[in-house]
Amino acid sequence: MEKTKLITPRKLKGFWELMPKEQMLFSSLLSKIEEVFKANCFVPLDTPVLEYSETLLAKSGGETDKQVFRFTKGDADMCMRYDLTVPLARFVAMHQNELNFPFKRFQIGKVYRGERPQKGRFREFYQCDADIIGDGELSLVADAECVNMFEQCFDALGLKTRIEVSNRKILSGFIEEIGQNDHMTDILIVLDKLDKIPLEEAMQELSEIGLKSEECEKIIKLTKTSGKIEEIMQNLRNFCQNQLFQIGLEELQELDTYLKSLGSTSVTYNLSVIRGHNYYTGTVFEGFLKNRKEAVGGGGRFENLCSYFSDKKMPGVGMSVGITRLFDLLLSDGYFDISKTSEIDVAIINFDETLADGLKVMQTLRKNGVKAEVFSENKSFKSKMKEANKRQVKYVLIVGSDEVKSQKFALKDMESGEQISLTIEEIIKKIQY
Amino acid sequence: MEKTKLITPRKLKGFWELMPKEQMLFSSLLSKIEEVFKANCFVPLDTPVLEYSETLLAKSGGETDKQVFRFTKGDADMCMRYDLTVPLARFVAMHQNELNFPFKRFQIGKVYRGERPQKGRFREFYQCDADIIGDGELSLVADAECVNMFEQCFDALGLKTRIEVSNRKILSGFIEEIGQNDHMTDILIVLDKLDKIPLEEAMQELSEIGLKSEECEKIIKLTKTSGKIEEIMQNLRNFCQNQLFQIGLEELQELDTYLKSLGSTSVTYNLSVIRGHNYYTGTVFEGFLKNRKEAVGGGGRFENLCSYFSDKKMPGVGMSVGITRLFDLLLSDGYFDISKTSEIDVAIINFDETLADGLKVMQTLRKNGVKAEVFSENKSFKSKMKEANKRQVKYVLIVGSDEVKSQKFALKDMESGEQISLTIEEIIKKIQY
Repeated sequence: MEKTKLITPRKLKGFWELMPKEQMLFSSLLSKIEEVFKANCFVPLDTPVLEYSETLLAKSGGETDKQVFRFTKGDADMCMRYDLTVPLARFVAMHQNELNFPFKRFQIGKVYRGERPQKGRFREFYQCDADIIGDGELSLVADAECVNMFEQCFDALGLKTRIEVSNRKILSGFIEEIGQNDHMTDILIVLDKLDKIPLEEAMQELSEIGLKSEECEKIIKLTKTSGKIEEIMQNLRNFCQNQLFQIGLEELQELDTYLKSLGSTSVTYNLSVIRGHNYYTGTVFEGFLKNRKEAVGGGGRFENLCSYFSDKKMPGVGMSVGITRLFDLLLSDGYFDISKTSEIDVAIINFDETLADGLKVMQTLRKNGVKAEVFSENKSFKSKMKEANKRQVKYVLIVGSDEVKSQKFALKDMESGEQISLTIEEIIKKIQY
Repeated sequence: MEKTKLITPRKLKGFWELMPKEQMLFSSLLSKIEEVFKANCFVPLDTPVLEYSETLLAKSGGETDKQVFRFTKGDADMCMRYDLTVPLARFVAMHQNELNFPFKRFQIGKVYRGERPQKGRFREFYQCDADIIGDGELSLVADAECVNMFEQCFDALGLKTRIEVSNRKILSGFIEEIGQNDHMTDILIVLDKLDKIPLEEAMQELSEIGLKSEECEKIIKLTKTSGKIEEIMQNLRNFCQNQLFQIGLEELQELDTYLKSLGSTSVTYNLSVIRGHNYYTGTVFEGFLKNRKEAVGGGGRFENLCSYFSDKKMPGVGMSVGITRLFDLLLSDGYFDISKTSEIDVAIINFDETLADGLKVMQTLRKNGVKAEVFSENKSFKSKMKEANKRQVKYVLIVGSDEVKSQKFALKDMESGEQISLTIEEIIKKIQY
């Protein structure tokens, strides 16, 4: 028979794939976040990875977006989802008469961006989204729940974070007040990069947009306002009498009351939080690791989720943890001790005549939550010990004929080198606790 | 401003999507299976949904397979994965020098088939796969672990199943013995449908392939052999002296010994288990719900996982639960009580002045594992009670000013109608246990 030509195994560029230990750690982060979502009474949703292009590109009027993986099959023109929000909008619009509102759903899933691969940017990555959608109206309590749950996510991961909150109505109200409504987006784009460019450059850009010199100063001062809610209120109550501005302030204060009831402790207020997305209209927030400047997630309030699919007004508020990026930051910060991560707690070393006994001991340990593994490949004692070492197993358990007779087994702590003789029950107790 | 034309929200045909309650149930099945995989020391793997077409279609020599979603982006020709095995092979071949062997990995993920949608067949569905890959060699203990873990999966779901096991070497050995090696696949195809077509038709097809009348009878008798291991051995030990046949029998007996050590109780042996895939070469098994004829998963031993990517021989054994199909069967069998599935255990009904108190109570309950939800939308008491009913909430908890003062809250059991006054601690105790 002719030998088949071998194909070089390659992964697509820009696609994330972890080695087993990293994947174990990453999966445990996902589980912890999922637990938080469930504990807060959010229901899971699992939409298809593919959608009709018409649906997914509704916003852009159906034009091909270069950043989207799009193709046709039969007569269907489809795309891979680039976020979890448009599929949510499609789902809510389709099922608006069957769902309970406020509809609280979470979705943890991969999304796809067709952009050119570059460092720190992936073409396939996870999003952990949770949103609350109202039917016509939605209380500010929902905003507080999202901010608080965002905080709970980081608490569950054992991470020290600060969460910075603002309300888009405040800046928008001020921009309205100075008659620059038509340049809203341009102005927000400048303000969004205040911490990245020199002040003079920002002033210059704002004045090019059409702001007077004192307006530039005032809006920069406004954007740089931060602190506790009392400080915000004291500094801004008389800053601008515009109605939208004042509503924004009131909402911020109301939100703070709810956050206190919910027990939030990591929240401060910072008017520089803008969040790029155009669709945020009220509360906006971002989370930061203590030692980092890049946000690792955030969210906010939007006016109408389903505007492209339905006449019904469906306001919402959501939060998202940028888990792929967060994991990368944690990895490079040395947050995980990968050398101590092993899929096995106890390596069981048996001899030919005690294989059946070794398997029985293994099952008993596993049933009691101890990750035990019989090294069943036909190798010498020495090479099995070497293997246990290489795999960073915590304990080795020796199951020989004598041990089977006495039902006491030699347990060796691979770090300290200590070896003691114990019954199965004692072993379980020692390792479980 | 001109009104945007609305787009009808549609899901792609043949793509599975569950409503929240069904999704809660489905997710809990997935979690239970994942727990089983982890308890058995399998590590998670999460390969990209997209692969180079060259990789994914290695088997077919790179020809486009109509059942695959394939497209190009830039200069990359790629496909959505149609199973989790080829990506595993690509991963193992890429990392063969970094991985620990036997490499035990699980992957729970969606796979894609571009075929025309039809009832019971989906274009996107889940696979729950676990495989053990050896480096050059792999003990039969691995086969036993896979069969046993397959059983554990169904146990974890509380399902009564029977697991039927065979070894492909037995049938192959017999076919070799009668000199029909060249027609191996054709013969197996006929034998695989013995329970679906009349006996005469099977005999006819076999004789057309070239089997003599007594060979037909003998191979059908062989295929219909089933029972405990002792019965199999007694009936078949002298059935055929072909070496492969005898090795198959020995392996089956050895497997049975390991399965007994591992505590398996749902296994019987049945030579009619063939499993379509060409690549199975030894142990094969399938699982059936007690009342059903369609398999809900299975697996087996294969000779070489990475033959298209590497010269190294990597034997493996795997198992897969057909969770999407299983869930559909369970739904139609009434296995779930969907009317009793709710994302909320306790609906908290507060009044305007007690919203903050309601939120505090809610957080305390949630922190103690009780799924509590404040109905915070600005509605009347009556309409909140109606909402609680509609959402099949088990309890309603009333948080009014008097309750806040006394710290005793009225808890109403929505099924029995009983209402009692309890402290938060008492409520937690009542609902947790």
